[in-house]
Amino acid sequence: MNLNDIFEKIDSNHERYVQELVELLSIPSVSTYSHHKGDVQRAGEWIAAMCQRLGLDARLYPTDGHPVILASHCPHADRPTLLIYGHYDVQPPEPVDEWVTPPFSPTVRDGFVYARGASDDKGQVFTYLKAIEALMAVRGELPINVKLLVEGEEEIGSPHLGAFLGQHKKLLQADAIAISDGAQFAPDVPAITYGLRGLAYMQLDVTGPRVDLHSGSFGGLVMNPIQALSTILCSLKTDGDRVAIDGFYDQVVDLAQWERKAMAELPLDVDQLQEYLGVEDLYGEDGYSPLERKTARPTLDINGVWGGFAGEGAKTVIPSKAGAKVSMRLVPNQDPDRIAELFRAHVAKVCPAGVQVKVTHLHSAKPVLVSRDLAQVQAAARAIRTGFGKDPVFIREGGSIPIVNLFKEELGLEAILLLGWGRPDDGAHSPNERFSLEDFRKGIRSAVALFHELAGEQP
Amino acid sequence: MNLNDIFEKIDSNHERYVQELVELLSIPSVSTYSHHKGDVQRAGEWIAAMCQRLGLDARLYPTDGHPVILASHCPHADRPTLLIYGHYDVQPPEPVDEWVTPPFSPTVRDGFVYARGASDDKGQVFTYLKAIEALMAVRGELPINVKLLVEGEEEIGSPHLGAFLGQHKKLLQADAIAISDGAQFAPDVPAITYGLRGLAYMQLDVTGPRVDLHSGSFGGLVMNPIQALSTILCSLKTDGDRVAIDGFYDQVVDLAQWERKAMAELPLDVDQLQEYLGVEDLYGEDGYSPLERKTARPTLDINGVWGGFAGEGAKTVIPSKAGAKVSMRLVPNQDPDRIAELFRAHVAKVCPAGVQVKVTHLHSAKPVLVSRDLAQVQAAARAIRTGFGKDPVFIREGGSIPIVNLFKEELGLEAILLLGWGRPDDGAHSPNERFSLEDFRKGIRSAVALFHELAGEQP
Repeated sequence: MNLNDIFEKIDSNHERYVQELVELLSIPSVSTYSHHKGDVQRAGEWIAAMCQRLGLDARLYPTDGHPVILASHCPHADRPTLLIYGHYDVQPPEPVDEWVTPPFSPTVRDGFVYARGASDDKGQVFTYLKAIEALMAVRGELPINVKLLVEGEEEIGSPHLGAFLGQHKKLLQADAIAISDGAQFAPDVPAITYGLRGLAYMQLDVTGPRVDLHSGSFGGLVMNPIQALSTILCSLKTDGDRVAIDGFYDQVVDLAQWERKAMAELPLDVDQLQEYLGVEDLYGEDGYSPLERKTARPTLDINGVWGGFAGEGAKTVIPSKAGAKVSMRLVPNQDPDRIAELFRAHVAKVCPAGVQVKVTHLHSAKPVLVSRDLAQVQAAARAIRTGFGKDPVFIREGGSIPIVNLFKEELGLEAILLLGWGRPDDGAHSPNERFSLEDFRKGIRSAVALFHELAGEQP
Repeated sequence: MNLNDIFEKIDSNHERYVQELVELLSIPSVSTYSHHKGDVQRAGEWIAAMCQRLGLDARLYPTDGHPVILASHCPHADRPTLLIYGHYDVQPPEPVDEWVTPPFSPTVRDGFVYARGASDDKGQVFTYLKAIEALMAVRGELPINVKLLVEGEEEIGSPHLGAFLGQHKKLLQADAIAISDGAQFAPDVPAITYGLRGLAYMQLDVTGPRVDLHSGSFGGLVMNPIQALSTILCSLKTDGDRVAIDGFYDQVVDLAQWERKAMAELPLDVDQLQEYLGVEDLYGEDGYSPLERKTARPTLDINGVWGGFAGEGAKTVIPSKAGAKVSMRLVPNQDPDRIAELFRAHVAKVCPAGVQVKVTHLHSAKPVLVSRDLAQVQAAARAIRTGFGKDPVFIREGGSIPIVNLFKEELGLEAILLLGWGRPDDGAHSPNERFSLEDFRKGIRSAVALFHELAGEQP
């Protein structure tokens, strides 16, 4: 099968697509600001209306927050169904005075469209809409069944998505899910993300004396809670930046040889990375490369610490309380609940006498690893080759994407296709967010190719 | 010499003395509140006027803050001069609704006068004024030369006292200084404080990556500044709660055998102390008693710590910065500047690679030890025996009193008599501050006896 006719359609309509995207980007759908509630609703309605014009069965579902769009077109009982996920809400634009052109007055220059939401995520969602439009226009039909789920609360942590998935399992049934809410490995290095780290996020609360004490009058009588906290925090790592919690590494699946080789071949510029981080040397677990450490090895970081006097000058106090936030990034097959229990046991073992410590498990995410051997993953790789003109690299991501766990847990989806059409320097969450119009075009092509690949039709 | 005639005078005027004290306590001379500036001035004028009525040469000296009262009566070229220090400003009364009677409506009940400043320090200053009054009334003269220095900024750290002492060295020349701005060891256990700990107060500022980083995207690449800070903080102590800084103990004068024996005989109720502190066990340096540890041994305490996210919930951040305040209580002959340098060297040695650490020496106080063998100290002990009817205990105080260092350094005074007429549970700085009327009477008697003892006249 040849897609040239469709690609020609995409090219000839490129300017109109961009104009429509500009219209969508003009709506300030900032989900965290209540005074933009109407704008968020309007962006949702705009997308739902476009879905209807494309021939999809589209509906805006209210939630206790912002609405969810669910649109589908499933004419083929014998063909696979692809669920496409994205979001139409955006980050706040602040600091507004750092934008060259206003965040909600989308402007095209140097081959990019600049606006809040351009890359994250309206522009990427839009590639699927335009792929559907082009296919419908040229062929009158889609090669597979398609469901679109576009939410309005991603930037505030998707608080109502889990309940929505739970209530609409049947409607959302699919064979694979495509999520384009991220980036290529580098500009013009398209990527498929096949691994995400998990998370176990803990809080330590140490209590010593009943009240804050004068360190002159009482210094020498009590265990200082900050001292005890420091002892606990120090005990969590050993030399070589290994986590010192008993059993922490027991469930870790070692990196395969092919995977280490593939990672070593990725074009990571360490000098540039150090400059970005503002450090003279990278630091991490002995025996692993920076890329392995940041994406495929578990880590432990202290995210916050507090206690006593933090103001200007000197206050001679022995505080009653001190605390810290500690989180661990997990890799397959580490289980967050099990890791939290090991953490708890470790703290109980090392906590000095003279203080009480409370350990709270605040937050969890399971690590995700999608098999590269899955037919849908292979199909996505071929689609990107068609759309971008080069093979994608396979990468793992150091962070967690909570919605991915939702899709796994609520819908049982294993074929999770993380296909970022953006670039790492698109400025998602920053001033002057942008989306390359070339990536926009390649993303639409890739989406068209993906529909065909999943249908088993070679382009 | 017999003081009974004077003591009778004191007893017969007791009610009037209390009424006058109530009048002084009614003035809300809160030095830290600018809206009470006029009240602070008024309290100063009230005391200066009383000094003049007693026959002293009294003057209110303006400073860049609140005024200082200097009053003197020095008729004897051949007799010693006693400088008496106190303050007429008070702590804020908040929380006001916890007071049984209003803080500036002094009320007598159960043998105490309740008001802000009752014990700290108006009531104690007043004992010297009434001692002078009674002596003048009965004998027509004082047995020694007396100078009174009463400041209005003690509760805000005496910011202008050092300059004042420097400018008026000659006027302030004396053979001994009496400071009654503290407490007995316990109710009816009068005390002479002969030792104060010094202080070296440090700040640590640790800087890692240029900006706060996402702990998912970057965890495994950099040394976490809180981790580095914890490593430094942990390194400051060894087992047995000893300070691990090289050379820290080199200048420490060991406790004398007689001193350890005397401390062991002091009536310290450990159960009560633990209940007050809210701890199940006391904790401190091996080989020393609680009282030795809290008053006569050097200590190190972390007074504050900060870095990263300390709010509710979870934020996955590797902070760019973290910091801590660390102070060391020092004993003779530890020098704060030398200790600060040792601290700095230690931190440089133990700070992990991958972060920068800045060490700031914020504040210093030299330790003070007054020889019990000084004639003036022995005179004070006999005076307390006369005034309170029992020998004082000799104690060391764990805190530092910055003004004591000022008197040593600016005026060269060695005979420092720290004679607290208050009680540990008088509630200085707390709601329902009070002063025992019996201690008030005994304080006046002791002051009278002190004047005679210093003159070399046995009572």
